[in-house]
This record gives sequence, structure tokens and C-alpha cells, in this order.
Amino acid sequence: MTVPAPAGLVLRPALRADLPRIVELIADDAVAATRTGSFGPAHVAGFEAIQASTQDELVVAELDGQVVGCMQLTFVPGISRNGASRLLVEAVRVAEPLRGQGLGRVLMEHAHARGRERGCSLAQLTSDKRRPDAHRFYRALGYAQSHEGFKLPL
Amino acid sequence: MTVPAPAGLVLRPALRADLPRIVELIADDAVAATRTGSFGPAHVAGFEAIQASTQDELVVAELDGQVVGCMQLTFVPGISRNGASRLLVEAVRVAEPLRGQGLGRVLMEHAHARGRERGCSLAQLTSDKRRPDAHRFYRALGYAQSHEGFKLPL
Repeated sequence: MTVPAPAGLVLRPALRADLPRIVELIADDAVAATRTGSFGPAHVAGFEAIQASTQDELVVAELDGQVVGCMQLTFVPGISRNGASRLLVEAVRVAEPLRGQGLGRVLMEHAHARGRERGCSLAQLTSDKRRPDAHRFYRALGYAQSHEGFKLPL
Repeated sequence: MTVPAPAGLVLRPALRADLPRIVELIADDAVAATRTGSFGPAHVAGFEAIQASTQDELVVAELDGQVVGCMQLTFVPGISRNGASRLLVEAVRVAEPLRGQGLGRVLMEHAHARGRERGCSLAQLTSDKRRPDAHRFYRALGYAQSHEGFKLPL
């Protein structure tokens, strides 16, 4: 059974003022720390591009006035799978002291609800092979671990 | 060494008239056949959504007036990896009789060039675990097979 998420948890669109904390959350992770860097102009430019996009949403989880989680949603139209639109989920993070309390599940259920609202019939994400706990989490949410994920610096 | 792509190969944005052939290419595959279906209104709606998007491009490869390959590109802004934008590549297909002749590499090199033009510093894609030949192809292009890929019907 899932532990209920803490009372008072609010999910909302990220604001510019949340950005330093979001970068901190994204970097607070052994896998991501080396590549995300500390808050700077490149993150602001990324944030502004997300704000300008009609296909992207950056979501934060707030608890007692503190940002304790985040994720990015992208709605991708397509031809495959009978013209399905896809929900792409990236940069899912929960603050370390609050992990294992159901916040991640609340974030993902919100992601799926937003995907359905936007007409998506498939959610997809990738997770670094060095994150077995995350893999277990996604499988527990019903995800099929059916694909290999490839990345190439451009 | 790569076999050079056939002379006369042209890469161009997909047109509405190409769509039945694109659906045929996407479905001509043991893995995708059961889920893509035969050409219909849902594919048209997906095509129109891609056309309306400023972040998506559907590309075809044409040889001697025939569409022999396709792929979809999505440009995704982000906060992770120091505010990197990502190139997402989906639905890469080469017509069966022309496989192994370098067309896939030409398609992917075009994808990477378009990604760079759009400011992306990372390309990413997933490939069904049942496609070991595709995995070898992406590794040969320099991709790191670093992630697990998860999918969930919504």
C-alpha cells in the first residue's frame, strides 16, 4: 500500500522564484550532481524556454511553503501507436528527507492526469541505469520497463 | 566504415500526401505492427498536431520519388544538465529493402544537425528491448546505452 502523501502538499506550476531551489533539487543526486551544475544563467534560459512553450510544463510540489519536489512534462504529438500523443516526463525529483513518503507517486499521478487532459494516451520516461530504486518506483506505478534509453551529446 | 547513402537521397519535411506511406513504414516492423494500425483519421490528427507544433518536425527520406524513410524530431527545453535543450528522436524507420545501406545514418546525422541548429546539446531516444539490431546501430553512432526506458498507457 502507498503511504499517503503529507497533508498540505500542493502541486503548482513553477515560478521564476522557485528556480534556484529546482536546480538544487535536480542536482541533489549522485547521478545528476556532476552534470547539472549550480544555479546560473543557463538554467534561467531553460526556464524561460519552458515558459514560452505550449508543450512543456514545469511543476513543483510545495509543502509548508517549501519546494520539495519537481518534474517537467512535455506533450509530444505523433504518428506511431495510431497517432498517439505522448507525455514525456523528465527531471522528477523529491527532496531527500521526504523520499519514501508517497510524494513521488503524487507527482506522477498529477503528471498522468495532465497527460490525459492534453490527450496523451502514453506516458514515457527514461531513468539512468544507475538508479535501481527509481526503476522499482516506476514499475510499481505500472510502467513497463520495455525500452533501452540512449543519449548522445551534440 | 559506413557504406555511403544512395545517391539522390533527399531529406525533407513530410507532407500530408506522404502520410499513408509514413504509417506503412512505421507499421512495417514486427514490434510496431500490432500497435500502429493501418492508415486512418487518428494518424491525420497526429500529423496535423505535428504540423501545428513549433517544437516538432516530421522528416522523410525520398529516393527516386519514393518515401523510403522517416523520423520525428522534438526539441525539448529543460533545466537539467545545465539548462540543456534536448533533441528527442522517435519513429525512425528505413524501408526494409534499403536497410543496411547507410540511410539510417544519414537520417540520424540530419537529426543531430537539426538539433544543434535548434540549440540542443543532447540527443535522446528509446528503442524497444526487442530490437538488438537497432541498439547496435545507435551505439555505432556514438550513443551511450545508459538508461532504462519506461512506458505506461494512460
